[in-house]
Formats: sequence, structure tokens, C-alpha cells
Amino acid sequence: MSKDEVVAKARAAVEANHLDALVASSPENVCYTAGTFFITQKSVPDRLGLVVLTSQQEPVFILCTIEENSARAESWLSNIRGYKEHAEKPVQLLAQVLTEMGMQRGRIGIETRHLVQRDYAALQEALPHAELVPADEVFDHMRAVKTPAEIKILGKAAFATDAAIRAAFGRAKLGMTEQDVALMLVTECRSRGGEKTVHVVLATGASNHKVHAEPGDTQLAPGSVLRTDFGMTWGHYNSDVARTAFIGPIKPRQASAYNTLEKIHQKTMASMRPGVRASDVFKLCAAEFEQTDLDFWVPHVGHSLGIGLHEKPMLQPYDHTPLEAGMVFMVEPAITTEDGLYHTEDMVEVTEDGPRILSRSGDWSHPFVINE
Amino acid sequence: MSKDEVVAKARAAVEANHLDALVASSPENVCYTAGTFFITQKSVPDRLGLVVLTSQQEPVFILCTIEENSARAESWLSNIRGYKEHAEKPVQLLAQVLTEMGMQRGRIGIETRHLVQRDYAALQEALPHAELVPADEVFDHMRAVKTPAEIKILGKAAFATDAAIRAAFGRAKLGMTEQDVALMLVTECRSRGGEKTVHVVLATGASNHKVHAEPGDTQLAPGSVLRTDFGMTWGHYNSDVARTAFIGPIKPRQASAYNTLEKIHQKTMASMRPGVRASDVFKLCAAEFEQTDLDFWVPHVGHSLGIGLHEKPMLQPYDHTPLEAGMVFMVEPAITTEDGLYHTEDMVEVTEDGPRILSRSGDWSHPFVINE
Repeated sequence: MSKDEVVAKARAAVEANHLDALVASSPENVCYTAGTFFITQKSVPDRLGLVVLTSQQEPVFILCTIEENSARAESWLSNIRGYKEHAEKPVQLLAQVLTEMGMQRGRIGIETRHLVQRDYAALQEALPHAELVPADEVFDHMRAVKTPAEIKILGKAAFATDAAIRAAFGRAKLGMTEQDVALMLVTECRSRGGEKTVHVVLATGASNHKVHAEPGDTQLAPGSVLRTDFGMTWGHYNSDVARTAFIGPIKPRQASAYNTLEKIHQKTMASMRPGVRASDVFKLCAAEFEQTDLDFWVPHVGHSLGIGLHEKPMLQPYDHTPLEAGMVFMVEPAITTEDGLYHTEDMVEVTEDGPRILSRSGDWSHPFVINE
Repeated sequence: MSKDEVVAKARAAVEANHLDALVASSPENVCYTAGTFFITQKSVPDRLGLVVLTSQQEPVFILCTIEENSARAESWLSNIRGYKEHAEKPVQLLAQVLTEMGMQRGRIGIETRHLVQRDYAALQEALPHAELVPADEVFDHMRAVKTPAEIKILGKAAFATDAAIRAAFGRAKLGMTEQDVALMLVTECRSRGGEKTVHVVLATGASNHKVHAEPGDTQLAPGSVLRTDFGMTWGHYNSDVARTAFIGPIKPRQASAYNTLEKIHQKTMASMRPGVRASDVFKLCAAEFEQTDLDFWVPHVGHSLGIGLHEKPMLQPYDHTPLEAGMVFMVEPAITTEDGLYHTEDMVEVTEDGPRILSRSGDWSHPFVINE
């Protein structure tokens, strides 16, 4: 993204939604609109960053004075205002900035999925004549269709993460622990450009029934299932790939379940064309599983990915957003079997010419068997 | 912590604050009261976990069905209720549970610093006769005085993190990059029991003016300042230690500024006795810096630490909480000099016999010089 792209997108969104201003407060929307991220937005959530976007005026970036030097060095926004933590509430400075911009009686779009009740109430009190309106979906929509530069980095990250999983699975041996394999995953991914670890779910044996199991000291044992759901960062963007492998000898029922999952996964991805609704993709996948004896119970079969991990649209039964070219989804059906949970997750770019799978560095159409 | 300790603390808090129920929603308070943490509470914030605590009834743990297996295996709470993501809002199930408990007209303590505006409004709509009251400070108070078991793990983590920093600084050499040193830090800390990396701020040279600078490819150069602020997890608990070192030859003005910082830091920690107010500690530190020519500008000089990174009380001018035995603080004055930012951070346990510094594995009373 660039400042010009963001400002143009924000201007269009402000006008289309009859707003006077749009205020980003979540780490993801602040990062998207200011071009920078500071770690305390997640580790110290009270220390709000805020970006005020309007139709005509220069965007304003509000943040704690502690982070001001970083923002001046890293953000593409230059109109930066600092509040002194504890002495002044972030939303008080926001109210002051909006007032200076002549918007104290304006219609202000707010992230009601992010701004907490205490801050929302303080903002409304400081701006009693302003109309605060939910604008979460305005941001969702701005971020849903990716630019070519965003697709490039997301595709590169997904491909490298998949390659790291293949490499780590290739080096995995009987008797290694989950933690050993997880360390190889991170090392392999870092050597391919991954920066910070976002999540390493990795499980085998009994802990495999926990969806987001953390790697422990269980050893790889013959006949068991090894599942990972793994992601790192590339700049401000995420990767997120899930794979399931088998510690040989693989049982016939394991191969059969894996092949069914893979076949339905491919059918689901093949359906992802512009105009198809997100909910239709979920329903197609669910209907395919209906015809098998596999236990399919997940509430969604995928999500968009970008600066955030679960972005909208989501491939779930109540999200009726039509897919558009330039959207990027992680498609991730999962099933429960007597041998544990199977999970596979691939990146699909929606294009006018149909879906493009960006996350396959090798052949996952057959079960990956370790120690054979 | 144990279930019994938490239930007893929650019962006392409910009664002291004339509440019918207390609802935890932040990852930290859910972890504290349910004895478990699931990673999607941070990576997918919409997917709320909620714990309902009352005076007489068994606590109820509400979470997404996706995480239910993990919770049943890991939480000390057994009354677990799952909502199906997308089909049902978490706060809808919360309203239903509160109604089943006979509290639909009750006085319900809510985390208004965590619950977002959209969820708060939906909860109030679902429980039109309930009185939702802010209970953030109720939880702050519950968590402020640590149990002996909590102090043990926090002290162990702080000591090991300090030892890891000393070891990494000891191995650092001219020409290495910030990233090289950061990798050694994490490796040294992991070998001493650190689990997941929470933050690795590490900076030298020009990037050192950014408070939360991420390690980059700047090389260690003679005469420059190397600063780190680093933490990992130990179980559900955090470590958080900051240190400043010098790439030799150290300049006289660097040694002088370091020694002044250390002297004031020691005086500040020495003042931390039961009954002294958090704001007094800040003011003492600020007054000491007033008498020097150093640029002291930080809005706080420390924070409590536990499951959360910045817990209350905070050592800042507006927090007048009296210190109590069993509170655990990270004391962290920082100064800006022409050579960059200096930062030092130590763990202090407040005891009846005075402050105990838990984070010094070696001698930091003199400047640590690399490459001498």
C-alpha cells in the first residue's frame, strides 16, 4: 500500500458512507492507514493509536508520545499528534482534533468492534453533538480487495510458509517431539523470509483433538496424525497455512479420509469466482461433506488474510458478501476422525479468470507420510 | 493460582462491590479466572471467552465451540458452555447464561476497558433490565497482590531473562547486527526456560531513538549505545527486563549518564514500601532527575507485571494506589541523551521488610561494555 492509495480509498469510503470522518483505532486499521505498526498497540491495548481520515483534509495520526519518534520515522503520515499517557486520554485528544477540524457536530465513523465501551462513552461525552456511527464494515470493505503489491507479498509469504512446512515434515523423524518439529518449522520459515512467529499450532497423538494445541513434548509415534497450523509475518502481512501428515505406516482409513478432505477442498476452491457469495462457498463445502461419513462441524471454512489474521469476508454461512477479483482467502476445511483432527489450509486469490492457489510449493494431493 | 484461590477472591470481590455477577472478558482476566489461555483470544478478538463469577454459584466458562475441547482439557472450570461462531454472538450466550442464573435484573460487573462498544450494546439490549457496571478496577485489584506461587514464577522468569541478556551481551561482538544479538537473546532465554517471545526491542545507532525499535541490520559500532527491552512467557506469566550496554570504548559522558540513571533507579526502588503510593514512587524518581541535566520525559516509571504486561497499579503521577506486600513491579526509568535512549528495568517485590529486587543475575551497577 502507499499513502496515495490509502487516502484515495478512505476518501471514497467517507463519501460513499456520507461520513464527515472515519476513525481507525484497531492495530490493523491503523497499520493499513498509517503504514506503520507499533508493538504496544497489541501488548498495551490502552495505548491507542488513532487515524482520522476525511474527504478533503490531510489525515491525522494520534498516538502516545512514547511512540512518536518511531511514527515520525516510519509512517507515511506526517500530521502526527501525541498525547501524554496517563495525563490525557487518547479519545480526549481525538475529540480535540475532530473539533479543530470543524467536525464536532459531524457524522463520525468509529470502529465499534474495536473501541471499548469506556473509550466510546468518553468520546461521546467529549463530543456530545457528534453522531458516532459504526464503521467497521467500511474498513472491512476498504481492505477486502487487495492491491497487486499486497497480493504479491501475501502470495510469497504463503508459498514460503508451505515450503517451510514441507521441509520440516521432510526432516521429521520417529521419536522427535512436537516441540522439535515446531522449532524446525520456524527455522525453515525464517530462512525463507518469515519474520515474527504469529502462531505455531502443532499436535500429534492425544493432544491433536485440541484445535489450537501448542507444541508439547509428545513424540511422533507410528500410525499417528501430525497436524500444524502455522504463520509468520512478512512486513505487516501474515501467513497462515495448515497441513496434516501421517507417521507411517499410514492406515487405509487415514489415507481415505485425507483424500476425501483434499478432494472436497479442491472442489471448494474451484468454486471461488467473482460474484459467488462467501456463504455459497461454505455451503458448497458443507454439502460435499454431507455426502461422506466424515464429521464436519467447523463454523467457517475460510477467511480473508492481510494485515489481520481473520479478515472479512469470511467463508461462513451468514456472510453473503459476493467475491471480487483481488480478494485473497485462506480456505481451510477441517474434519474430526477417530485418529484426530485433519486440517488443510490454502491461499486462494480470486481473479476474473478463476481461483489461483498461491500456497502450494509441492504436491499435497496425496498424504504426506513421515518415516516411510 | 488455583481454582479455590480464584473462586474465593472473586466471591469476596462480588460481595465487596455489591455485584450479582462479575464477567471476565479480556484474555488476561479469562486466563486468571479460568486457568487457561487460548491463542485466538488475541489473534481473533471477536472470538470472545467469558467467565461468569458470582458469590454462590459455580463459575461458568463461555467460549467458542472451536476451543471447547482445549478448555475441557486445560481449564480448572468444568461448567463450560460453547457458542457456535457466526451463528450466535458470544454476548447472546452470556445473556442467556445470566438469565438462567436468575440475574437478568442483576448488577453485572463488566470489563469496560475490554468489552467493545458493539458487544456492550448487544449485551445491554439482550438484558434490558440488568445494570451493567464498570468492574475493570475490581479485576485490577484482584490481580494486584500476587500469591507466593505467582511471585515465584515471576521472579524466576525475571532472573532468567536478565541472565539471558547478560549472556547475549557477553557474546556480542563488533560488527554483529541487532538481529544477531536479538537471536542470541531469545536462544539464551529459551535455554533458561523462556517459552514464547513476547517482545524483543533491541536498538543501537540511529534507530535507538525509537522507544520500541525492532532489531534490524544495523551493526554494533564503537562508541554506540545498545539497548534492549525483552520478555518471554513462563506458563501464563510474562518476563520484561530492559538493559543498556555500550560498545567500547565507552565515552565519559556515557558512563556518567549510566551511573546517574542507575543511582536514581536504586533510590526509586528503595522507596517501594507498603503504604507508599504508586504516584509517590513516580514523583520521587522525577524529582531526582530534576536535579540532574538528564532529559527525563517518560509518562510512567514502572508497572505491575503478571499474566498481563502492564498491570495495575502503574508507577505514574495519577495512580494513587498504596503499595501492598505481594505486589510485583517492573521499575523502568528511561532517559534520552545525545547518544540515544538509556533504559533499565528491574523487578521489585514489595514486602513488609522492604523491596526485594528479583531480576539481577549479575552486577549492573557499572556500565556493561562490549568489546573492551
